[in-house]
Amino acid sequence: MNYNDIFARAIDRLHEEGRYRVFIDILRNRGAFPNARCFAGHNGPKPITVWCSNDYLAMGQHPKVVAAMEEALHDVGAGSGGTRNIGGNTHYHIDLEHELADLHGKDGALLFTSGYISNEATLGTLGKLLPNCIIYSDELNHASMIAGIRNSGCEKRVWRHNDLEHLEELLAADDPDAAKLIAFESVYSMDGDVAPIHAICDLAEKYNALTYCDEVHAVGMYGPRGGGISDRDEAADRITIIEGTLGKAFGVMGGYIAAEKNIIDVIRSYAPGFIFTTSLSPVLVAGVLASVRHLKSSNVEREAQQEAAAYLKRSFRDAGLPVMDSTTHIVPLMVGDPVRAKKISDILLAEYGVYVQPINFPTVPRGTERLRFTPGPAHDEAMMRELTSALVEIWDRLELQLQKAA
Amino acid sequence: MNYNDIFARAIDRLHEEGRYRVFIDILRNRGAFPNARCFAGHNGPKPITVWCSNDYLAMGQHPKVVAAMEEALHDVGAGSGGTRNIGGNTHYHIDLEHELADLHGKDGALLFTSGYISNEATLGTLGKLLPNCIIYSDELNHASMIAGIRNSGCEKRVWRHNDLEHLEELLAADDPDAAKLIAFESVYSMDGDVAPIHAICDLAEKYNALTYCDEVHAVGMYGPRGGGISDRDEAADRITIIEGTLGKAFGVMGGYIAAEKNIIDVIRSYAPGFIFTTSLSPVLVAGVLASVRHLKSSNVEREAQQEAAAYLKRSFRDAGLPVMDSTTHIVPLMVGDPVRAKKISDILLAEYGVYVQPINFPTVPRGTERLRFTPGPAHDEAMMRELTSALVEIWDRLELQLQKAA
Repeated sequence: MNYNDIFARAIDRLHEEGRYRVFIDILRNRGAFPNARCFAGHNGPKPITVWCSNDYLAMGQHPKVVAAMEEALHDVGAGSGGTRNIGGNTHYHIDLEHELADLHGKDGALLFTSGYISNEATLGTLGKLLPNCIIYSDELNHASMIAGIRNSGCEKRVWRHNDLEHLEELLAADDPDAAKLIAFESVYSMDGDVAPIHAICDLAEKYNALTYCDEVHAVGMYGPRGGGISDRDEAADRITIIEGTLGKAFGVMGGYIAAEKNIIDVIRSYAPGFIFTTSLSPVLVAGVLASVRHLKSSNVEREAQQEAAAYLKRSFRDAGLPVMDSTTHIVPLMVGDPVRAKKISDILLAEYGVYVQPINFPTVPRGTERLRFTPGPAHDEAMMRELTSALVEIWDRLELQLQKAA
Repeated sequence: MNYNDIFARAIDRLHEEGRYRVFIDILRNRGAFPNARCFAGHNGPKPITVWCSNDYLAMGQHPKVVAAMEEALHDVGAGSGGTRNIGGNTHYHIDLEHELADLHGKDGALLFTSGYISNEATLGTLGKLLPNCIIYSDELNHASMIAGIRNSGCEKRVWRHNDLEHLEELLAADDPDAAKLIAFESVYSMDGDVAPIHAICDLAEKYNALTYCDEVHAVGMYGPRGGGISDRDEAADRITIIEGTLGKAFGVMGGYIAAEKNIIDVIRSYAPGFIFTTSLSPVLVAGVLASVRHLKSSNVEREAQQEAAAYLKRSFRDAGLPVMDSTTHIVPLMVGDPVRAKKISDILLAEYGVYVQPINFPTVPRGTERLRFTPGPAHDEAMMRELTSALVEIWDRLELQLQKAA
């Protein structure tokens, strides 16, 4: 058994497929996001514009968020010092859980250290507690949901993406008395499309299934108070568990679920990924509190984001670039090959100071590699026009085909 | 299928066993840890002393840590805005990984959002990458290691706690050509005992096994530079992977592994719990950088912690309290019953302003419920004398037996 050979071969496979990942080393410029600087070993940092951040509304630099974090840092210090049960439960955590429960119109909420672990821990634990539970999972569900479902040990049925007929077919084929859970996302982050929440809930009611909706790419951004697509579509009360993140539109870090009290209590009491981990730093929690409260009452950021996304999609489409059919703030350009996607991304960074990461397997299926742009309130029209021109030049240079504008 | 009944029964079971958890709601007092205040719905917050924090060295309020976090907060904002691969890789992350690699004398290190996910992701991924791997796990390993091992799908052999003969027996019984990984902790946090690292590494060499050592309750606190028990025992170069936390002695939040470059690269490239999650907030990373750097050169905190732990153990022992046989900074008092442990903890909080959480199943085995004290540099002798008197009074009141001092 030669361990080094095995590890070396695992790395070689990534190089062969052109999907070995090199992390680009960046720092934002104070208060000026999406402007940042990139370190690459040469003569000092290079100025760049970030086009692929999930700090969708630039809340990570919002003065209210920064001020709240600074205050908490001085008041109570850097870390919580313990799990929620052993010394790590601060008043900030409790306040934020109330705020998030209210955001989704639920009895309660529960914080986790990340969205990943929210999904893994909640789905894993629910699946274990419900006897012989069957979990119905949209085929494009996030890796963290897949991990939770797998770790639950449940029977799993994968339904074709957003395909209600297929979902119903699967539900109807199973024992009517079996415990059932339908797991899906509201906004699919790599395609930018949206789930038909009401129709899924109709099926859940018809077949007595629980529903679990991952809203990480929607909370803060959709609905009159930023409660996500379920807020926009007035469907939150029909969903059993809503899961969200504190690290994208809210601009900080962490994850959560919102649900009725007994479900929160069960996950709080049984999920290893919740129980056995140091709680979120109170500094982060204080920042999120400010962010959630701000976005509950302010629509300025949401509207500016939607306008920027619409402008960029139109700009790409008018230029004949292969923008994918997104109905949200996410603007993906299909490339379809990992090496070419990386090449475009490299040119953008080196020659245009544009940072957009190529998205490859396992984040998206092989053959659907893409560039994924996330314009927000801080990207202006001049930036978007320049970006479009740069892409057209590169498409031309690499002899890629531009589509005729409609 | 009545879901509510199932959830209600799951909660009822906890009440029946006396292990339903109520999180106590606290806030530290500015710069004065372990002093804090507790909120319980009555007339304003009540002053308390925290005796069960894992902010072992009070680094969570160290001026260098607070200053570094404040600077990063203003410079680059609240959150990283992405995964390490997509926009969330900052210069702080890279600096901290270099610092942690150096701390353990390894080629590289990799940050995770928590110690829990470090263990789950690394063990889960290693076990999947190594063909037909067998993992040998100490029976007292932490829940996050157990989760990783389970999720790896590997064969698992549980060896009796710190029992080298049993470990060798298991290793010798397996195919010599099979991939093998020995997983253990350096300091076991609920008993306070220490693993025989060199002897475990001797067996690993003899049977061609990799080693994985969880040092979360040791990093920052042991060894001349705070590299943990493996630093103190000069064994770091014999361990394949050292795992640590940023949320205990370093005072902030997060986790990491340190190992040689190809292992770091493999975990970085294959572990879902690393790939698919927003990276640590740069604010946290900046704080940890300051903390690790400080503790690499300062022994003051480590010495003060050891003196406090020795004083408290002696004080408990002299009073006849059932202090467990810990060789580290952890001072556990055995109670052996969840209801009684909670009762003692409740009296301490209500009447003496002492906060120590009762530790119950699943954190420790049933029948070994205990109170776990973690005195540190900020707990003075007067506090420890008062604590001992309070415990003796409660032991007397509840008619529990005190042991004759030797």
